[in-house]
Amino acid sequence: MGDLKLVKDFTVGEGFFGRYEKLVRDVVLPYQEKALNDQIEGAEKSHCIENFRMAAKKLKTGSCEGEFYGMVFQDSDVAKWLEGAAYSLAQNPDEELERRCDEIIELIGEAQHEDGYLNTYFTVKEPDKRWTNLHEAHELYCAGHMIEAAVAYAECTGKKRLLEIMCAMADHIYRHFIEEGAEGYPGHPEIELALLRLYRCTGDERYQELARHFIDVRGVDPDFYKKEVEKNPWRVWGNNVGDKIYNQNYAPVRKQDKAVGHAVRAVYLYTGMADAAAQTKDTELAAACKTLWNNITQHRMYVTGAIGSAYEGEAFTKDDHLPNDTAYAETCAAIGLIFFSNKMLYLERDGKYADVMERALYNCVLAGMQLDGTKFFYVNPLEALPGISGEAQTHRHALPVRPKWFACACCPPNVARLLGSLAEYAWHVEEETLFSNLFVAGTLDLTARFGGKVELHTDYPYDGKLEYRFMPEKGKTGMKMTLAVRMPAWSEKTDICRNGKAADCEIKNGYAYIQGTYTADDVITVMFDMTAKRVYTSSRVSANTGKAALQCGPLIYCAEGVDNENDVLSLSLKRDGEITVSDFLPDELFGIRKLFAQGYRETAGEELYSFDRQEIKPCQITFVPYYTWANRGLNQMRVWIPERD
Amino acid sequence: MGDLKLVKDFTVGEGFFGRYEKLVRDVVLPYQEKALNDQIEGAEKSHCIENFRMAAKKLKTGSCEGEFYGMVFQDSDVAKWLEGAAYSLAQNPDEELERRCDEIIELIGEAQHEDGYLNTYFTVKEPDKRWTNLHEAHELYCAGHMIEAAVAYAECTGKKRLLEIMCAMADHIYRHFIEEGAEGYPGHPEIELALLRLYRCTGDERYQELARHFIDVRGVDPDFYKKEVEKNPWRVWGNNVGDKIYNQNYAPVRKQDKAVGHAVRAVYLYTGMADAAAQTKDTELAAACKTLWNNITQHRMYVTGAIGSAYEGEAFTKDDHLPNDTAYAETCAAIGLIFFSNKMLYLERDGKYADVMERALYNCVLAGMQLDGTKFFYVNPLEALPGISGEAQTHRHALPVRPKWFACACCPPNVARLLGSLAEYAWHVEEETLFSNLFVAGTLDLTARFGGKVELHTDYPYDGKLEYRFMPEKGKTGMKMTLAVRMPAWSEKTDICRNGKAADCEIKNGYAYIQGTYTADDVITVMFDMTAKRVYTSSRVSANTGKAALQCGPLIYCAEGVDNENDVLSLSLKRDGEITVSDFLPDELFGIRKLFAQGYRETAGEELYSFDRQEIKPCQITFVPYYTWANRGLNQMRVWIPERD
Repeated sequence: MGDLKLVKDFTVGEGFFGRYEKLVRDVVLPYQEKALNDQIEGAEKSHCIENFRMAAKKLKTGSCEGEFYGMVFQDSDVAKWLEGAAYSLAQNPDEELERRCDEIIELIGEAQHEDGYLNTYFTVKEPDKRWTNLHEAHELYCAGHMIEAAVAYAECTGKKRLLEIMCAMADHIYRHFIEEGAEGYPGHPEIELALLRLYRCTGDERYQELARHFIDVRGVDPDFYKKEVEKNPWRVWGNNVGDKIYNQNYAPVRKQDKAVGHAVRAVYLYTGMADAAAQTKDTELAAACKTLWNNITQHRMYVTGAIGSAYEGEAFTKDDHLPNDTAYAETCAAIGLIFFSNKMLYLERDGKYADVMERALYNCVLAGMQLDGTKFFYVNPLEALPGISGEAQTHRHALPVRPKWFACACCPPNVARLLGSLAEYAWHVEEETLFSNLFVAGTLDLTARFGGKVELHTDYPYDGKLEYRFMPEKGKTGMKMTLAVRMPAWSEKTDICRNGKAADCEIKNGYAYIQGTYTADDVITVMFDMTAKRVYTSSRVSANTGKAALQCGPLIYCAEGVDNENDVLSLSLKRDGEITVSDFLPDELFGIRKLFAQGYRETAGEELYSFDRQEIKPCQITFVPYYTWANRGLNQMRVWIPERD
Repeated sequence: MGDLKLVKDFTVGEGFFGRYEKLVRDVVLPYQEKALNDQIEGAEKSHCIENFRMAAKKLKTGSCEGEFYGMVFQDSDVAKWLEGAAYSLAQNPDEELERRCDEIIELIGEAQHEDGYLNTYFTVKEPDKRWTNLHEAHELYCAGHMIEAAVAYAECTGKKRLLEIMCAMADHIYRHFIEEGAEGYPGHPEIELALLRLYRCTGDERYQELARHFIDVRGVDPDFYKKEVEKNPWRVWGNNVGDKIYNQNYAPVRKQDKAVGHAVRAVYLYTGMADAAAQTKDTELAAACKTLWNNITQHRMYVTGAIGSAYEGEAFTKDDHLPNDTAYAETCAAIGLIFFSNKMLYLERDGKYADVMERALYNCVLAGMQLDGTKFFYVNPLEALPGISGEAQTHRHALPVRPKWFACACCPPNVARLLGSLAEYAWHVEEETLFSNLFVAGTLDLTARFGGKVELHTDYPYDGKLEYRFMPEKGKTGMKMTLAVRMPAWSEKTDICRNGKAADCEIKNGYAYIQGTYTADDVITVMFDMTAKRVYTSSRVSANTGKAALQCGPLIYCAEGVDNENDVLSLSLKRDGEITVSDFLPDELFGIRKLFAQGYRETAGEELYSFDRQEIKPCQITFVPYYTWANRGLNQMRVWIPERD
C-alpha cells in the first residue's frame, strides 16, 4: 500500500483533471498561501503563519507580543496547504515554492517544544492546558494533519525535516498516551489515519500501535469526555460532552453500526479504522467498517456523494433523511468519504467502493470549488432557492453562490490536497495487478514494479473511451501484469478490446481483469455506455418521492434557472421522454456536455393553493453537470425533478 | 363589534363543536387547572398559582419563601385558563368552578401593587427591574392576557373584580407610557389587542389611545431595543436586539409589508392593528393589515392554516418556504391567524377572511389537541416520519405523537379559550345583518337586536347541509334581518333555499345575503358541494411540486401509515383517479368520514439509488382528516402526496 509513491510516479495528462492540476498549482495554492499569510484584501484573516511565528518567538525568548488568533485548530490549515504544495512539487518542480515551504517547515520546527510537543494554540495561549480537553481542543487533529503533510513532503520532495519534527511529536504523543497511560481519544478523529501513514512511511511500529490504540479505546469508556470536563472544566465551544451519538463514542468502534455525529470526523475515523483493519488483518474491525460504509451509502449519502444532512452539528442525522435544500453536505465530508472508500478497496476489492469515490469526486467535491479556483462552497445543497437559500434562518449555511474564503478554512485546502494526490485513489498496485479505479488521464511510472510505464488516454468523464498504452523500459519488450479496470455500475454495457478485438478478461466484483505481457504496440480500449439516464431514490427518502435526477457517465446533472427561463420549480420530467446529450461544448463552463430532456412546465398561477391543476405545457429542460452549478450567478438549481407521464 | 356578547348569547348545539365544548368543560379545563396547581403527576411543573401566592405574600409581609419558577411569562397561563373558564361558565353555569375562579382572582388582586402594577416574575424575582426589558420580559404580554381574561370574565359572569384589577394595571401602564412618556413597545405584542377589548368593554378611551400608542411607535425607532439593553443590560434569554426583522420593528407598522419574526407575536400584533384600524377608520393602517394578511395567506401559510415555517425563532422565514416535515406551525400561531382574520372581516366584509379562519380552525388548531383532550401538539407538521420526526436534530420540535404538557404551556389553554368562544368568530352582527361565518350548530339569542333567536342545525363539517331556523320572541311574528351566509371558496356549487325553493339572495364577496322577515316557519337551507377534491400548491413552493393534497368540505386530509400498510412514502395519487367519500363512521376517531383514492404503490427496493424505476402497482389509498392524525400511535403521516397518471 505504498499509496503516496503513486502520486510521485504519476504524471497527470491533458484530460479533465489536467486542467484541475494546473488550476491547483497556478491559482488555488498561491491564493491559499496568500490567505495563510493574511495577504488577501477583504478576506477573513487567517493568521496561521503568524501563530507559528509567535509560538517560535515565545519558545526562544519566553514571551511574544500579540495574541493567538483563529480557530483552536488553525494550525491544520498550514498543514493541509503544505500537503497540497508537496503534491504539486511532485508534479511540477518549483524551486521558489519549495524554498518557501522549507521556510515554513523551519518555522514549524522553531515552534516545537523540546519534548516534541507542537501546537501554537497551546504554546501561545494555553501553555498549561495541554491534553486536558481532547473533546474540543483538537490537538490530536492538528498533529494528524501535520503528520500527513510531513509524510507527503518527505515522499514528494525527499526532504525529511518536517518528518523529523512530526516523528518527535508522534513520539511525544506515544509517551503521553501509551507509556504514561493517559486516558482518552480525540474529539475530532484524524490522528488515526495520519499515524498509519506515518507508520507506512517510517516503518516504526509504534505509530501503528498508537493509531490502533486511539481506535481501540474509543467508546470503551463512553463517559470519558464527561469525566474529562469534570476534571478540567475549561471549554472551547461548550460542546455537549454527554452526547455520545454526536461524539461517536456510543460504543466501542467495533460495535458501532450507524454513521453518526459530525460527518467529517466520522469518515476520518472510519478511514483510520479501515486502514488499520487492512494493515493488521483485523476482521472484526473490517466487519465494522463494512457495516458503517453500507449504512452511509445505503441510507445517509446524497446522490452527489455528499454526506451530512444537517447544519446542526455539521452532522449525519437519521437513516433516509436526505433533505436537498438544507443539506450540509460539506465538501470536506465528501473528501473524507473518498478517503474511507479508498481504504475499503484495500480491505475488499470491490468496484462499489471506487464507484462511491467517483460519485463523491465528480459531483460533491468538484462542486466545492468555483470552476476558476477562486471561490469555495463548504455546503453543497442539491437544491438552491434564491430568496430562501442563504437567507432563511434554516438556510443560512446553504449559500446559493460561493464566497471567497472562510474564517474556518478547512475545505479549500482539502480540495487542493485531494486534487493534487488523485493518483493515490485512481491507481492501486497489488502484487501483479494494476487497478485502475478512477480514470485520470496521464502516465504512471511502474518501472520498478512492472518494468515500464502505463499511459491512460481519455477524455473521461465527457467521453466513455479509455485507452491504456504501455511503455516497457528500454531493453524490455513487454510488461507482465494484470490490468484491472473498474466497471462502473452506471455503465450498463462496457466493451473491452485488446488491439481492436474483444479482450480476454475476467469480470469480478466490479473489475475487469486483463492479464498479459504488454508491449509498446498493445492498446487496451474500454468503452463505457455514456447514455444519459434517470436515477431514482428509494421511496424511504421523503424528499425525493416522485422525482428523478439525470446522470451521464459519472456525472449527476442539475437544472439551473439560467438555462431554464429562471424557473426550475415549475418543471417536470416526462417519464419516458427522450434525453439528448449535447456535443462537447468547450467554451461553456470550461468544457461540458449538456443534457436536454423532454419535460413540462406548469404555468405559474398567482394563488398559493388552488383546486385546479395548473396548465401544463411540454418543454425542453436543459441540464448541466452538478459540479458546474452556481458558476453563472445567483439562480435556482435543482437536482431532483418531479416526473410525470 | 360587541363580539363577546355573542359568546354569552350563543348556546352550542349537538353538532361537531358540541363535542368539543363538552371536552373543554369536562376534560381540558379541569386538567389545565390541575396543571396550574402542580397536581399532575409526571407532568412538567407549572407553579403558576404558586407564583401569585408568593407575590401576594411578599406584598403583604415584605418577603416570601421560595423562588419564582417558570417562564418569565408564566402568569399568562393563569390568564388564558381564566379566560377559557369564563367562556365555559357562560355556557354552563358551575358554582364550584366560578368559586375557584373567584378565589384565583382574589389572589391575583392580592398580588397587585398599590400603583396597579401586576406581574409575579417582577414582584417576586426582579422588583427593581420593572419596564427595563420590554424586549424580552413580556410584562405587557402578561398584562394583555390578563386583561383579556378580565374582559371575558366580566362579560360572561357579570363579575367585575378582575376587570377592576386589570383596569388599575392598564391605568398604571397608561401613566408610565403616556403620561410619563416612557419609550418603547412590547417584544411580544398582545397588549394592543387586549387594550382594544378593554376599551370596548369599559368605554374608556384611554385604553384605545394606549393600544394605538403601542401600534404607532413600533418600529419608528427601530433601535429602541438596542438602546434599551445598553441602558439596562439584563437579559432573559439574550435574544438579539439588533435583529429588526425578527423583532418586527424593521419599519413603522404602516410600512411593514412582510409577515416576519415570531409567528404568534406577528399575528397578535396584526390583530391589534386590524382592530384599531376598524375602530378608528384608519385607512393607512387598514391597508398595511391587508398587505400583511395577503403576504401570509399567499406566501407563508400551510394548507392547514398553519403559519411559521421554522423552529428557529418559532418564526416565519421567507416567501414560499413551506417545508412539511420541519414546519413549526405552532397551534397558537394558527389561533392568532384566526384572531387576525376575524378582525379583518370587520375591516372588509369578504368571505376570504372567514375561509382562512375555517382553514386554520378545522385543520391546524384542532390537530393541536388529542381527540380525547388530554394531550397537545405545539408543532403541527404536515408530514411525520417515525425515526426522523422528533429525533433528528433538525426535527426535535416536530414530534410525531402528542406529549402530555409542556414547560411552556401556551398552546393548550389557547385552544381551550378559542373553542370556548367560537361564537365570536362564527357570528358577526353588523347593523341589520347577521353574518354566519363559521357553521357551528347551536342557538344564537338575538332578542335585543332582532327580536328573537336564530338556530343553526347542521352536521357540518361532515355534512354540507345547513338549516337556519328562527324563533321570534313571544308576541312577535317575525324577525326582520338580513342573513348573510359565507359561501366557502371550496364549495363549487352552493344551493340556497328558503322553505324548499331557491332563495332570493345576493351573492357578494363570498357571502350570500338573504333579506327577510323570518317567522317560526321559515327555514333557510344551504347545501354545499362536499365532493372530495385535490388541492395543488403553486410551483413557487419547492416542497410540494408534483404533489396534491385532498380536501373535503373544509377538511384537509392526510394519509397515515396505520391505514396504509405502514408506508405512505411509497404511495402516489392517480391524477384523474376516483376519490370516494366514506359513510360517516361514528366509531372511528370520534366520528369521521374517510376518503379512498385511487393511487399507486412503489415496491420498495433495497438500493438507495437505482437506474430502474421501482415497480408500481395500483392500490387504494385511505385518507383521514388531518386534525385526527397521530391519535392511533406512532406512524407515518403525509398531507402532500406525489401524483402520477
